[in-house]
Amino acid sequence: MRSRSICYLCLSDNEYKDFLLPAERAALATLFTSVVRINPEGFSDMDAWYAWLEKEKPEVLVTCWKTPTLPEDPKHPGLSELKYLCHLTGSVRKLVPRALIESGLIVTNWGSSISRVVAECGLLLILTELRRSSLWSLRMHRDNAWKGKDLDTRSLFNQKVGLHGLGSISRCLVDLLKPFDVSISAYSPSVPDETFEKLGVDRADSLEDLFSQNYIIVELAALTPKNHQIVDERLLKMIPEDGVFVNIGRGAVVDESALARLAAAGRIRVALDVYSKEPLPDDSPFRAIEHVTLLPHISGPTVDQRCAAGAHGVENLSRYVVQGELSAIVDLWGYDHAT
Amino acid sequence: MRSRSICYLCLSDNEYKDFLLPAERAALATLFTSVVRINPEGFSDMDAWYAWLEKEKPEVLVTCWKTPTLPEDPKHPGLSELKYLCHLTGSVRKLVPRALIESGLIVTNWGSSISRVVAECGLLLILTELRRSSLWSLRMHRDNAWKGKDLDTRSLFNQKVGLHGLGSISRCLVDLLKPFDVSISAYSPSVPDETFEKLGVDRADSLEDLFSQNYIIVELAALTPKNHQIVDERLLKMIPEDGVFVNIGRGAVVDESALARLAAAGRIRVALDVYSKEPLPDDSPFRAIEHVTLLPHISGPTVDQRCAAGAHGVENLSRYVVQGELSAIVDLWGYDHAT
Repeated sequence: MRSRSICYLCLSDNEYKDFLLPAERAALATLFTSVVRINPEGFSDMDAWYAWLEKEKPEVLVTCWKTPTLPEDPKHPGLSELKYLCHLTGSVRKLVPRALIESGLIVTNWGSSISRVVAECGLLLILTELRRSSLWSLRMHRDNAWKGKDLDTRSLFNQKVGLHGLGSISRCLVDLLKPFDVSISAYSPSVPDETFEKLGVDRADSLEDLFSQNYIIVELAALTPKNHQIVDERLLKMIPEDGVFVNIGRGAVVDESALARLAAAGRIRVALDVYSKEPLPDDSPFRAIEHVTLLPHISGPTVDQRCAAGAHGVENLSRYVVQGELSAIVDLWGYDHAT
Repeated sequence: MRSRSICYLCLSDNEYKDFLLPAERAALATLFTSVVRINPEGFSDMDAWYAWLEKEKPEVLVTCWKTPTLPEDPKHPGLSELKYLCHLTGSVRKLVPRALIESGLIVTNWGSSISRVVAECGLLLILTELRRSSLWSLRMHRDNAWKGKDLDTRSLFNQKVGLHGLGSISRCLVDLLKPFDVSISAYSPSVPDETFEKLGVDRADSLEDLFSQNYIIVELAALTPKNHQIVDERLLKMIPEDGVFVNIGRGAVVDESALARLAAAGRIRVALDVYSKEPLPDDSPFRAIEHVTLLPHISGPTVDQRCAAGAHGVENLSRYVVQGELSAIVDLWGYDHAT
């Protein structure tokens, strides 16, 4: 057990409200001598933020989307006591300079606490493209449309689904797909056979196999240097005619120009939540292809599920206090491979 | 075993292709002396249709959406031999005059063979409204939109779902909802307790209970005279603030004017596949409320799943031949309560 200290929360009003429910706030109050919240939206500039750090010298800091970037220099006086940064969301790349992790700062993020909510968005986009529902709603509103002879609706039942990547989101998606009697295969060389077996997922030996043998492809591969635009035109063209391509992973894993060409030609059905450039530029070709379903990167935690990430953070804080093992630690490997 | 006879298919080219796969066609060929198909789109008028019936005097007739209405008079010479009408889709009200059923004609329809595909559309519409995905896609295309501070996405996980009706579609929907750790209740006085228990669904004792105690309501009640506009403004206002109302049943069960007012005011999230008037009139208020998801009654069998209804029909035909028990018989009660 560590000596009790102050827990600093650098959270905006909305972040505090959405991520930390009353039960979690009560838990924090029992774990620390006191809990001090500062609203990052109140800092007039970076100097004000640094001055606050220098004045408070936090040992434990809870951060979120709105927290400003920490000082580059691990020897900055505002960082002299900092031991643990509990980040309530995902990537810390914009928040934590790499040198701080090199110098031993403990950093955790939301880990897999919201994976199932991202998986839910994947299922939504699959069903949407099969039924053409976003296109129908758009046309019902804009063109006074009604169905005609050209109906091309499809069902998920008994389809073949291919997952590019078999991390925690894919595993949650497998659970959601089960009631549809689908065959699922995945391409993920680093995942052992026993995980595939436990999930009831077939291993695809290559991306070529994955893309050519499945009618529905869900893109969930990590954005590593090796994966940059690995889903190229050649692979996309292997998807069976009228097949479905859903991206809830990272936009830059895909050659988006090739994807836009195939989508515009009606060769495959496409639904996207992520893009290599975000916000999606106004002149993106996708904006002009009305039968592509477009979301503004909202597969992450829905507002009502942010509390799951908050609870995960508070669990980590309680483990920190008793010097237990933290989960979802961002080490240098994770830092370098984050998106 | 009946004496082998001719099986007449009155199916358009698309109906024949979508509903009867090669395996079912082969099965039919073994069941009957011969199988004769006529394309209903080839009849110039009703006289031509009646003349064909008189000439062929079918005993067994397989019908679908395009089949013209049968003669009103059971003594019509074209009906003299007709014993079994195997309808491959749902309601036969526009096809079969009531008097024919009164006079003993056996009629079956697709029964519950496509219920799971309708349930799939229900899940799609629930997820769509929770995530606001059809609205986002519309705005991403039309307004070059991107997410901002006002994000109001929600997840299905751990929600309370209320089903109005507990027939075969609701039961399939329960299966699809299971992985989301939801609590499900249903209002359906005619369904026995043991069915609720088997499904893991709680019984709502009244519509008031159903609407006030659940965040998500799925409308699946049959359109009986008693149910006409039974979901009125008073009930709709009981749905918790920002709750979800999905209709994949029948439009006329709901007071659509009240629903449009509540939707326009942003009081609840609404997704509709069915309407009291179809096609939905151009001047329907729903068309102007862009945050209501609108589909053109496509919750029925997707094109790729019409074969399930065809297989169900062929199974019934095989039972007819061996004088076995048919499923999904349309009796007078079913006829009068169909939509």
